[in-house]
Amino acid sequence: MEKQKQKSAAVVGGGLVGAMNTCYLSSRGFKVDLYEARPDIRTMEIVRGRSINLALSYRGRQALKKVGLEDQVVQDGIPMYARMIHDLNGTLRPIPYGKSDQYIMSVDRRKLNETLLTAAEERPDVTLHFQHKLVSCDLEKGKLTFKMNGGEDVHVEVTTDLIMGNDGAYSAIRKHMVKRPRFNYSQEYIPHGYMELTVPPHNGEFAMAINYLHIWPRNEYMMIALPNQDKSFTLTLFMPFDMFEQLKTGDDVVKFFMEKFPDSVPLIGEESLKETYFRLPPLPLVSVKCFPYHVSDKAVIMGDAAHAMVPFYGQGMNCGFEDCLVFDEIMEKLDSDLSKVLPEYSMYRSPDAHAINDLAMYNYIEMRKSVNSRWFLMRKKVDAFLHAIMPRVFIPLYTMVSFTRIRYHVVINKAKKQDVLVDNSIQALMALAAVGGGYFTAVAISRHLDSIPGWLRDSVWGFLRGDFAV
Amino acid sequence: MEKQKQKSAAVVGGGLVGAMNTCYLSSRGFKVDLYEARPDIRTMEIVRGRSINLALSYRGRQALKKVGLEDQVVQDGIPMYARMIHDLNGTLRPIPYGKSDQYIMSVDRRKLNETLLTAAEERPDVTLHFQHKLVSCDLEKGKLTFKMNGGEDVHVEVTTDLIMGNDGAYSAIRKHMVKRPRFNYSQEYIPHGYMELTVPPHNGEFAMAINYLHIWPRNEYMMIALPNQDKSFTLTLFMPFDMFEQLKTGDDVVKFFMEKFPDSVPLIGEESLKETYFRLPPLPLVSVKCFPYHVSDKAVIMGDAAHAMVPFYGQGMNCGFEDCLVFDEIMEKLDSDLSKVLPEYSMYRSPDAHAINDLAMYNYIEMRKSVNSRWFLMRKKVDAFLHAIMPRVFIPLYTMVSFTRIRYHVVINKAKKQDVLVDNSIQALMALAAVGGGYFTAVAISRHLDSIPGWLRDSVWGFLRGDFAV
Repeated sequence: MEKQKQKSAAVVGGGLVGAMNTCYLSSRGFKVDLYEARPDIRTMEIVRGRSINLALSYRGRQALKKVGLEDQVVQDGIPMYARMIHDLNGTLRPIPYGKSDQYIMSVDRRKLNETLLTAAEERPDVTLHFQHKLVSCDLEKGKLTFKMNGGEDVHVEVTTDLIMGNDGAYSAIRKHMVKRPRFNYSQEYIPHGYMELTVPPHNGEFAMAINYLHIWPRNEYMMIALPNQDKSFTLTLFMPFDMFEQLKTGDDVVKFFMEKFPDSVPLIGEESLKETYFRLPPLPLVSVKCFPYHVSDKAVIMGDAAHAMVPFYGQGMNCGFEDCLVFDEIMEKLDSDLSKVLPEYSMYRSPDAHAINDLAMYNYIEMRKSVNSRWFLMRKKVDAFLHAIMPRVFIPLYTMVSFTRIRYHVVINKAKKQDVLVDNSIQALMALAAVGGGYFTAVAISRHLDSIPGWLRDSVWGFLRGDFAV
Repeated sequence: MEKQKQKSAAVVGGGLVGAMNTCYLSSRGFKVDLYEARPDIRTMEIVRGRSINLALSYRGRQALKKVGLEDQVVQDGIPMYARMIHDLNGTLRPIPYGKSDQYIMSVDRRKLNETLLTAAEERPDVTLHFQHKLVSCDLEKGKLTFKMNGGEDVHVEVTTDLIMGNDGAYSAIRKHMVKRPRFNYSQEYIPHGYMELTVPPHNGEFAMAINYLHIWPRNEYMMIALPNQDKSFTLTLFMPFDMFEQLKTGDDVVKFFMEKFPDSVPLIGEESLKETYFRLPPLPLVSVKCFPYHVSDKAVIMGDAAHAMVPFYGQGMNCGFEDCLVFDEIMEKLDSDLSKVLPEYSMYRSPDAHAINDLAMYNYIEMRKSVNSRWFLMRKKVDAFLHAIMPRVFIPLYTMVSFTRIRYHVVINKAKKQDVLVDNSIQALMALAAVGGGYFTAVAISRHLDSIPGWLRDSVWGFLRGDFAV
């Protein structure tokens, strides 16, 4: 047997998923070249246009763990054990995410990206190429052409065994796939945009309770806040674009915040609010689905490139990281035979990616609206109770998504069955309550039987005996 | 008051919808230039790649009528009053489309296109430009660049008041829209492809009953046939791509047809079948949805460019023609003010286009599978009965789609309500039948009461009297 020639991979995109895939592919013996259009994030002063922090949960951590980075990442994260609901009247209400030891973790996107890039760079046979923008490609043949942005216009041509498209929601690799015959694709923008604001530290400390994901749910729109290592919070306002546009002056903005998010105004600061609101326009939120994710044995897309989702389940990064893990598991199972691995990855992963996409869209309503309802709070308690008495059988939806690796499409099916169970249980409880109530009513009546008119007593007894049937 | 300057429109695409819109826009006083990438269809020998005939129904006819072309088109069409189901054993079963005077009409795509182009050309201020392929455009500014294919490479630049994108399912204008911020888009390919075959005239006459749309429904796949003016039929085979690929030789094909569509083989002819099957590969079927259809006051897409659909409701052309009519109605209402007309068109038309897209997908199952079930046939009869006794209130789904201009999205809502009504009616009838059956059973038993054992008689009477309750 000859020794197999080392395979090469070109990872397009040096964000979170691209950097992680570089680690995985290097571990599998690939010679990996990573191409990123922007400069090295580790050398940049300001990184614009993406969320500042993210919620890391179980799936993401498992993927980090397998490349040996979980501990390093987690030590810089801030646990969030519950949602903290900020009502309009200033009341604060925590709603736990799971059991008392279960939490999601606020991590800094930039820091995490830097950690992953550095880890990737340290692996064998890995080269990182920054300021390389994809200008054309032939996916079937594994050919890529990049334009180098450093000074003169230099074009670089690459031929590789595996094109790994991890270039985000507006993926250039995916655009080439969309043109291919029988490629299914959808992009859906929601009416809401988002804007980030900051709550700086107050007197050197966090200005709000630390270990929470703060939410100001206002039905048609909402604001959230995640804590940062530097003791600030990053606020994100989600609101329909036309509402954003209605606020035209600094005073409009302050008035709106005083009315709708009054407790946040002193924390942000009026001047900072006025200034930040107009610094950047609100950004759109897109949901992307497609199928398949691969082209022959040569190219595959993952992360936002394959399934950008709205951010309301905090699973965009976690799902992207799990993509890398799932791909690695399939590589293991199919002995790195790309002609088998790529189709298997498309078949296996797409129902899960479509499912989390749908769940994220569903949570878009839950987060801004449902959390305000008594029914929602009651349901969370019923779920927690059922989970406590049968931890294997009944697992709350949020728990399955955030604290397990149950496949997302299985999560949806299981959640539907559980909903039926809960509905039936509640009906049974109500029936029991009705019977119990009936019994006590009957006992109460029987004690005062003499005061009921004879004709009424007789006809009721007659009815109960079944006299009506003859 | 100054006389308004004449507005200009550039219609991109000289197919059915583009040619019709040219007529409409000319009637509204526009100076219209139509650009078509292919040569003039009226001068071509063979036109490839599209279906040969189409089913024209009410919506399409109404649109033709308003530009004065209905009579001319209809005189070349062949009415089809019913589906003709070809069972595997050779049985033929007609299922009417509506009342005895309601029909859809088989028309020749090429002939229709030629009629429309000639009609457009005869209108005032209309110029047709063939062999003009769109190479770039700026939708916001109304700028288009075409490459002329006649000999040398000549580029033509155009600036216009209105870009009318009617360039089909793979629309170049729409591709520019997809890149715009917050444009919603989906393309979905179904697993089936299609292939056209021919049943030539036999002894100078139609080889099958003329006034029907013939269907060979085989659940997972199906074949249909529409009559042509030249007394041939065009057959279309719809089948999953992998099934197409399994037939590798002429003998495979003949064997498959002998097994699955036995009565069609002598009509097509074995040699012709073998030859035609391998002449062209099966073509894909795509369903496209998007929103919005316009860019500012400058560009709008219609027809397949806006909402390509699977062909199973025969509404692709009819919906495209109705687009032109709806646009014209909105132009009338809003006094041709494009800054108002275009957004209104997007808002008004999109729910209907999405609805017919969904209905077409639904009929994809009905045509190849449901028509084989007794339930389907019973339901068609129940529908016809309910429609007969309350013609305004209850209108069968197919009738609403094909023989009215009820908005497609209203059609879906109305059909859902009617389904509930039918289900309830059937349940009521069954309850009535049960009560009636019970009564006659009781009468029958009472006549033979003496032959029933005493203990059984007594306990039954006791039960009926309600003795169980005491």
